[in-house]
Amino acid sequence: MSVFTPVSDAALSDWLANYAIGRLVELRGISAGVQNSNFFVTTRLGRYVLTLFETMPRSELPFYLHLMAHLARHGLPVPAPIADLDNEYLGTLSGKPAVLVRRLSGASDMAPDAARCRKMGTMLAGLHLAGQRFGRRQLNPRGAQWRERTAEAVRPYLVADEQRLLDAELRFQASIDVSALPEGVIHADAFRDNVLWDEDQIGGVIDFYFAGNDALLFDLAVTVNDWCSQPGGELNAERTRALLRGYHAERPLTAAERTAWPAMLRAAALRFWLSRAEDFHLPRSGEMVLVKDPNEYRDLLHLRIAAGDSLPWVD
Amino acid sequence: MSVFTPVSDAALSDWLANYAIGRLVELRGISAGVQNSNFFVTTRLGRYVLTLFETMPRSELPFYLHLMAHLARHGLPVPAPIADLDNEYLGTLSGKPAVLVRRLSGASDMAPDAARCRKMGTMLAGLHLAGQRFGRRQLNPRGAQWRERTAEAVRPYLVADEQRLLDAELRFQASIDVSALPEGVIHADAFRDNVLWDEDQIGGVIDFYFAGNDALLFDLAVTVNDWCSQPGGELNAERTRALLRGYHAERPLTAAERTAWPAMLRAAALRFWLSRAEDFHLPRSGEMVLVKDPNEYRDLLHLRIAAGDSLPWVD
Repeated sequence: MSVFTPVSDAALSDWLANYAIGRLVELRGISAGVQNSNFFVTTRLGRYVLTLFETMPRSELPFYLHLMAHLARHGLPVPAPIADLDNEYLGTLSGKPAVLVRRLSGASDMAPDAARCRKMGTMLAGLHLAGQRFGRRQLNPRGAQWRERTAEAVRPYLVADEQRLLDAELRFQASIDVSALPEGVIHADAFRDNVLWDEDQIGGVIDFYFAGNDALLFDLAVTVNDWCSQPGGELNAERTRALLRGYHAERPLTAAERTAWPAMLRAAALRFWLSRAEDFHLPRSGEMVLVKDPNEYRDLLHLRIAAGDSLPWVD
Repeated sequence: MSVFTPVSDAALSDWLANYAIGRLVELRGISAGVQNSNFFVTTRLGRYVLTLFETMPRSELPFYLHLMAHLARHGLPVPAPIADLDNEYLGTLSGKPAVLVRRLSGASDMAPDAARCRKMGTMLAGLHLAGQRFGRRQLNPRGAQWRERTAEAVRPYLVADEQRLLDAELRFQASIDVSALPEGVIHADAFRDNVLWDEDQIGGVIDFYFAGNDALLFDLAVTVNDWCSQPGGELNAERTRALLRGYHAERPLTAAERTAWPAMLRAAALRFWLSRAEDFHLPRSGEMVLVKDPNEYRDLLHLRIAAGDSLPWVD
């Protein structure tokens, strides 16, 4: 259940009077999502999603909302924020920062085949290309600095073997020169459950609230680790190649990216091991995060290290 | 057939390299529309409509494209123009000004019932409300000044009775004080064939290339004359009231608008009589306009005059 702050029909009706989308027809809570309160909103003119931000500071939101607007304007199926009659995206409802976005059609596919992985690669390239012209910038909030800080915080809760793995991986990542890798705005959380399929097209890529500037290849690594891992954690070669080829056809991957690929898959595994370990060992009061198993990504990191340089690439 | 300028797959593929929507999958001409060349474009990431402007000067296009972008940003189902990687909407293809817009779903309904007329009223109010905050302005290109000028041009081709009707109506319209009527950007051509129904929702309002600033009530009059006339031309009271009530619930109509309603229905009939008479008697070489019967709107004008003040209103 992910409605943490209730919204009444009456309050929403008042709020909608400053929009051009017609009066309220139906308001319904959505039982998905882990950080915000989400609602399906039907008005006389359309279907939208209302999000109340439970934990993110208001000042951080314009980056994400303008990014979604920018990507939508470039023709990509992302939840475009709806401007009110003051031409603003961000409002206040039930005392929380609030935004309406266009409701996208489709449903997640947790077992995508190679054809769908290829389409996801194409979509990720489209997001990266459009993102190149986005006028705002913020560092990936879960990038290298966050990694160091979070590792220090969770290290005391790990067993000795895990501490050794963590220390070694942090040293390894610090030794990697990422300066030659193309950089830009990345989604940074394009897991299968954040992509909606409408028949065989991607009808929506959602949940941009981890987006930031980083190596584009890091985004590919996050995506491939989630989309292309087999039940045991090893990468499926066919699906991995399909996703990379879909991407490569739109934004050709460079030699530097080929070289950095194994290290980037490790960095992506480390990022989710750390955030899950933090959620598990250091749950913050007032934050209602669905706790996922940290060991899944610890084991994925082991496997990516063990694979060395023999990991599927676009060729 | 409305493809006047051909576009090759190769030329479009080159052009699409400056967009983020993926490579070309399919290009297909559209046999509808009377002023521009239109194509369905499918890329690896979505479905779009490509328009090549055949007669409109390039300098006039930004008003329309930014209006559509503004309305889409406010959550309304209009063809949002797609920005290229230079963040521009307007490009050049086959030597013509060209734009890609999001393809909307649905089909026209030429026999809308009262429920659909009501929804159309709601939609028109939404367009008017969002339009109030649009930062650009241009006078309705087929407004009062165009009416005077066009009447002079077509008058010699009319028979004596028609000339008398025209002269009297021009005098009548010149005597109407429109200064108390709420003004804003209007679609000005929201005929049934410019509205797409997706099941029982409006999936799209298209063809904004007659939009401009004028009395909002004039837009309602254009729409009601087309949507709510019976085969003989008289207004159907149930459908007219439904459309006006749908509108009124979102943007309450004023006493001044009640007073001006009969005159505005006549002005709207006159506008289409004149444009059709011009297309019929004075076809411009190089312009491939589908010639529609001018007499339909001449007869509608007669009927609206004959109805006097006994025309359906919101009450």
